[in-house]
Amino acid sequence: MISALADIRNLMRDLPSPDAGAAAGTAARNDRLTKPPGSLGRLEEMAVWMASWQGRHPPLASDVSCMVFAGNHGVTAEGVSAFPADVTEQMVANFTAGGAGINQLARLLDARLEVVPLSLERPTGDISREPAMSAAETCEAFRKGFETVQRADIAVIGDMGIGNTTVAAALGAALFGGDGADWAGPGTGLDREGVEHKAAVIDRALERHRRQSGDPLETLASLGGREIAAMAGAILACRLNRTPVILDGFVNCAAASVLHCLDARALDHCMAGHVSAEPAARRFLDHLGKRPLLDIGMRLGEGSGAACAALILRAAVTLHDGMATFDEAGVSGRREDP
Amino acid sequence: MISALADIRNLMRDLPSPDAGAAAGTAARNDRLTKPPGSLGRLEEMAVWMASWQGRHPPLASDVSCMVFAGNHGVTAEGVSAFPADVTEQMVANFTAGGAGINQLARLLDARLEVVPLSLERPTGDISREPAMSAAETCEAFRKGFETVQRADIAVIGDMGIGNTTVAAALGAALFGGDGADWAGPGTGLDREGVEHKAAVIDRALERHRRQSGDPLETLASLGGREIAAMAGAILACRLNRTPVILDGFVNCAAASVLHCLDARALDHCMAGHVSAEPAARRFLDHLGKRPLLDIGMRLGEGSGAACAALILRAAVTLHDGMATFDEAGVSGRREDP
Repeated sequence: MISALADIRNLMRDLPSPDAGAAAGTAARNDRLTKPPGSLGRLEEMAVWMASWQGRHPPLASDVSCMVFAGNHGVTAEGVSAFPADVTEQMVANFTAGGAGINQLARLLDARLEVVPLSLERPTGDISREPAMSAAETCEAFRKGFETVQRADIAVIGDMGIGNTTVAAALGAALFGGDGADWAGPGTGLDREGVEHKAAVIDRALERHRRQSGDPLETLASLGGREIAAMAGAILACRLNRTPVILDGFVNCAAASVLHCLDARALDHCMAGHVSAEPAARRFLDHLGKRPLLDIGMRLGEGSGAACAALILRAAVTLHDGMATFDEAGVSGRREDP
Repeated sequence: MISALADIRNLMRDLPSPDAGAAAGTAARNDRLTKPPGSLGRLEEMAVWMASWQGRHPPLASDVSCMVFAGNHGVTAEGVSAFPADVTEQMVANFTAGGAGINQLARLLDARLEVVPLSLERPTGDISREPAMSAAETCEAFRKGFETVQRADIAVIGDMGIGNTTVAAALGAALFGGDGADWAGPGTGLDREGVEHKAAVIDRALERHRRQSGDPLETLASLGGREIAAMAGAILACRLNRTPVILDGFVNCAAASVLHCLDARALDHCMAGHVSAEPAARRFLDHLGKRPLLDIGMRLGEGSGAACAALILRAAVTLHDGMATFDEAGVSGRREDP
């Protein structure tokens, strides 16, 4: 189904639109619930947004699907991470054993957790010297993400990949402009010197791939990585089956940005769960036009920030569904002439 | 036990201190968990803070206690609220029937919920014309709050009381300075003209009680209300039994501020769950030196913002307790020379 980059573009031709009826029903109920109008703030907006993308009122939030995509990156050879590249595979084992951060959050959410390693034995090319992936490899990873998605009330899509904040930063610069210094940050914990080196590696990668067409999918292929392509595929699949997505942090936003640059409406079914502590995370969100729900200094990846946001999103839906209306509870409304 | 304001001052003489050992144990474990150091941001800080006040490592977050205190306010006669005063009692019935916002959040948290109406048949005095409460009434309400508290892993303390943002604003001005315009906001939904009128009523109340001693407890008695005194009592009781408290919004912060002005260490066992959309909420938090966890436009009261924050606090504790260490998971640590 997805064997050429053109197939991805074709899949994006008929993006579902929000369901105005479900949204209107949810907004109307918001105003009948026993609370001052608007007093639940963003929780009320989130209930409306959930309904509009699920295409149902009231919206649901019990079935949460967490997906974590893992990839290895040739650019780690340039010394861009505080951790050795082996950690990607070791962390996949940790996910499988239930010991990672996302495992605890998935358990708390009573969520399904799917961990998808993407050809870890074949790191992508070192982007400072060569393309990350061929078009065929890009499609393969994108398809893997696309096919991992099953319908759920909410999707959380996360990443694991030593070196992938370097790749995400390079994608940010290539898609939105700026240079390595604008987009590079400490990632898993580089010091200032390390960040400067990382920025220089990103600048070399940008220079190396400058003669590209400017097509977002070709940019994705050039800069990688596999887990980023897979996350883009998963986000698109969620749109096609009307599953609202909570975006996670820096690397997840890089994946989302590829879709955004293909079609500015492509992320309307996504909310920003949090803003990562990675300095350029806010730069991504600004370009995507998303306001983060949480700002609590997280920078773990794995979908962990999005999973925390899912707790609040579930609260929003639970409030909307469970609260009594003024009529049901026999509570007086606003005074006519306050 | 609490029959005079001096008894409250006495209770504050021996405030428990944070447990440095439990905090150190939690901080050390934070650094051994399979994640880059510090990458869980405020979640790591919260785990340490919880341990230090519970006096145990690892901290717990399963047993959440929600308490909602309700009071009626004579100042509603001045037309300071968008809702009629009857709504306080109607909402207490709604709490009892399970239809209010806090009921849904308590259910989501699997929390105990205690609703405590405080002499609703006797509204406090209209503070623009007379004192809210006598010293004896203040003690009675404070004691009621104090005695409601049972030990829990986390406490959420909320309010219900038509007119109580007027009282809270007056308390803010009296305790921290400023006038009605600095502290008044729309509350349940006043328009601009309504807020100006509310500010003028607050200014009259401040003028009426200006000759007070400056003692925070006498200020509390003069301006009220009963649910605010009860919340102050509950916050103090939590400190004495080492239960960490999540502060809610504008009215809850007014109650906390009374304790803060008695002793600047009195709220060290409290974190700010959120910042209310009520404009002066941030003013309270600045005076209390608290950084809110959530900023999502809530302004419902009932402890609802704190209950949402409790979801994240529980996530913090669950991550801390459940994640594998680098050693346990066989994951490599940072490179020696990244």
